[in-house]
Amino acid sequence: MPAHETVRVGLGARAYDILIGSGLLATAAARIKPLARRNRTIVVTDENVARHHLTALMDGFAAEEMEALPVILPPGEGQKSFAGLERLSDALLALEVERGDIITAFGGGVIGDLTGLAAGLLKRGVDFVQIPTTLLAQVDSSVGGKTAINARAGKNLVGLFHQPRLVIADTALLKTLPPREMRAGYAEIVKYGLLGDRAFFEWCEKKAASLLACDAAALNNAVTHSCRMKAAIVAEDEREQGRRALLNLGHTFGHALEAETGYSDRLLHGESVATGLVLAFALAAELQLASHDDARRVEAHIAACGLPARIAGIAGLSASPDALIAHMRHDKKAKDGKLVFIVPHGIGDARIHDDVPLDAVARVLSRSIAHPA
Amino acid sequence: MPAHETVRVGLGARAYDILIGSGLLATAAARIKPLARRNRTIVVTDENVARHHLTALMDGFAAEEMEALPVILPPGEGQKSFAGLERLSDALLALEVERGDIITAFGGGVIGDLTGLAAGLLKRGVDFVQIPTTLLAQVDSSVGGKTAINARAGKNLVGLFHQPRLVIADTALLKTLPPREMRAGYAEIVKYGLLGDRAFFEWCEKKAASLLACDAAALNNAVTHSCRMKAAIVAEDEREQGRRALLNLGHTFGHALEAETGYSDRLLHGESVATGLVLAFALAAELQLASHDDARRVEAHIAACGLPARIAGIAGLSASPDALIAHMRHDKKAKDGKLVFIVPHGIGDARIHDDVPLDAVARVLSRSIAHPA
Repeated sequence: MPAHETVRVGLGARAYDILIGSGLLATAAARIKPLARRNRTIVVTDENVARHHLTALMDGFAAEEMEALPVILPPGEGQKSFAGLERLSDALLALEVERGDIITAFGGGVIGDLTGLAAGLLKRGVDFVQIPTTLLAQVDSSVGGKTAINARAGKNLVGLFHQPRLVIADTALLKTLPPREMRAGYAEIVKYGLLGDRAFFEWCEKKAASLLACDAAALNNAVTHSCRMKAAIVAEDEREQGRRALLNLGHTFGHALEAETGYSDRLLHGESVATGLVLAFALAAELQLASHDDARRVEAHIAACGLPARIAGIAGLSASPDALIAHMRHDKKAKDGKLVFIVPHGIGDARIHDDVPLDAVARVLSRSIAHPA
Repeated sequence: MPAHETVRVGLGARAYDILIGSGLLATAAARIKPLARRNRTIVVTDENVARHHLTALMDGFAAEEMEALPVILPPGEGQKSFAGLERLSDALLALEVERGDIITAFGGGVIGDLTGLAAGLLKRGVDFVQIPTTLLAQVDSSVGGKTAINARAGKNLVGLFHQPRLVIADTALLKTLPPREMRAGYAEIVKYGLLGDRAFFEWCEKKAASLLACDAAALNNAVTHSCRMKAAIVAEDEREQGRRALLNLGHTFGHALEAETGYSDRLLHGESVATGLVLAFALAAELQLASHDDARRVEAHIAACGLPARIAGIAGLSASPDALIAHMRHDKKAKDGKLVFIVPHGIGDARIHDDVPLDAVARVLSRSIAHPA
């Protein structure tokens, strides 16, 4: 068995393990088998993941003499729609999925979010396992039980909390990931340091280059540390009544940028978070809650990693501050019509604010739009 | 304030009251207002209910100086689809529904099931209140938190458990209900006696005629007793791991009959349950678990109420036992490919069986198909 780290998500009856290591895919079938009451699973994946990795996973199930039925979806965010949910639900029902079965979500955030939602809804709840295949999914979307599809009014507006039974994060799978997606996923790793662990941010500054080059030790450490921080927060506040909102550092800005670029390949989610992290620190400095030194340091690191540090650096985006603020009003976290921002009081100390003056937000946006880094 | 009964559904942090009485609609706004954080609610209803009762409800909100925004859907089971869920979700989002808001589901089972599901999914969970306007919804679908839409493979296959914050059952609303829908709802009332309370079944035998004629005292007693029995079972087994399955007495047969008639107006859900109850007792007698006297007595009461006691009595249905059994295999309760039946060991004593021989089921179906009552 390859060496691995285990992070426990402590949610009582719904507690589960996240296993992190290089080469874990070879052990996935043996780990899923004890969770499958009928010795069968349905594997939901997309065409890209299937091309690179499905044979290895299916060989594992064959070696365990366990039935595994693949459902292969087209790639892309378009699957996270009502139509996509209907197609997947019908496919799972056609394969006679039952309560007590286990579904395997094998892919990035789209596959995990969509499969988790379908699993949560079919016959009012079927179990599922996550095998995340992107860096973003390994450090963020596969952990914590948030599932969703998009609605006309915005992203992830329709979903539920449905915790997986197990998460298997094989960092060796990331070798087939395009460099741009690695960088996008890395933004969520930096986020953990910025929101709650200054020493981890300093480690990121030193190790980003090796991590982005798929160095196994750097990846395993970063994924483990990120999952451990997310697990601790989720265990404390599963349904985001309070502290879990800290995980949205950079996301209120980021979602507005994604909305303005039409949730397209022009700006990946992780890239929008990267810009959002810089903007969150710029806002904190504007409000005199964080130092300008911290804000400059965060911006320098984001830029050094090849991520968009300024709105001006996002190709083809020419949004006004007002247009971006209008998008923020539709954020899920909005409360009594007021915007909620996660504002860092320095690196490693993010806090929830519902009283941020919108003119400060507009000034920060203006500067980021006007000046390239 | 009109007199009313209160049934508490004891589910810890998710506990809620069911209020039952004649004329309660006039008090609904005052009862919902304290649950609405922003002093607003969105009222989801259908064209039929809106025509008869929406003005009265909206007048109440106006008197309470509370904002109430109606969403009026076309009537019918067709709304319980992915497309219907998307339309309602988009409508609720267009009205800027937020976490912490409260949605009011004002209608029968379709409105309650669809609105409850949309509420459970929007922004991963918005609260809702049920004001059921049919007898079926008052005694069954509005209580217990089951929400769902239909899939290609069958009814209610996609949904979740999302408990309402409050249920207001105004039995005076039933005066506008077509007699056929009253009878269909009454089948679920009889079910409670048959599954767990022989004395209540005997009360039903005596009072069915007054109840079906909308006698207020009979209705209030029947709805209260039914809700009390359902609430006790749901409190014990919210997610149907065990005992809650007893509420499905008559439903495995009933669902097969509904599937065979295409879930159409040819056979209402409650009518299918009525036939299913007779078949469940016929099966119990066939298996020598209940007496033939009990089976005959149940059949006589169902027939006396103008409900279909025999498959032969369902207009336009000519199904074979094999076709009906094939539908049963897709029942949500199926486990390890085996059928689960709720079998009464006499009136008032239903039990869960997963070992019923299919040839006995086929014999019972054959007789019900061959012989009109």
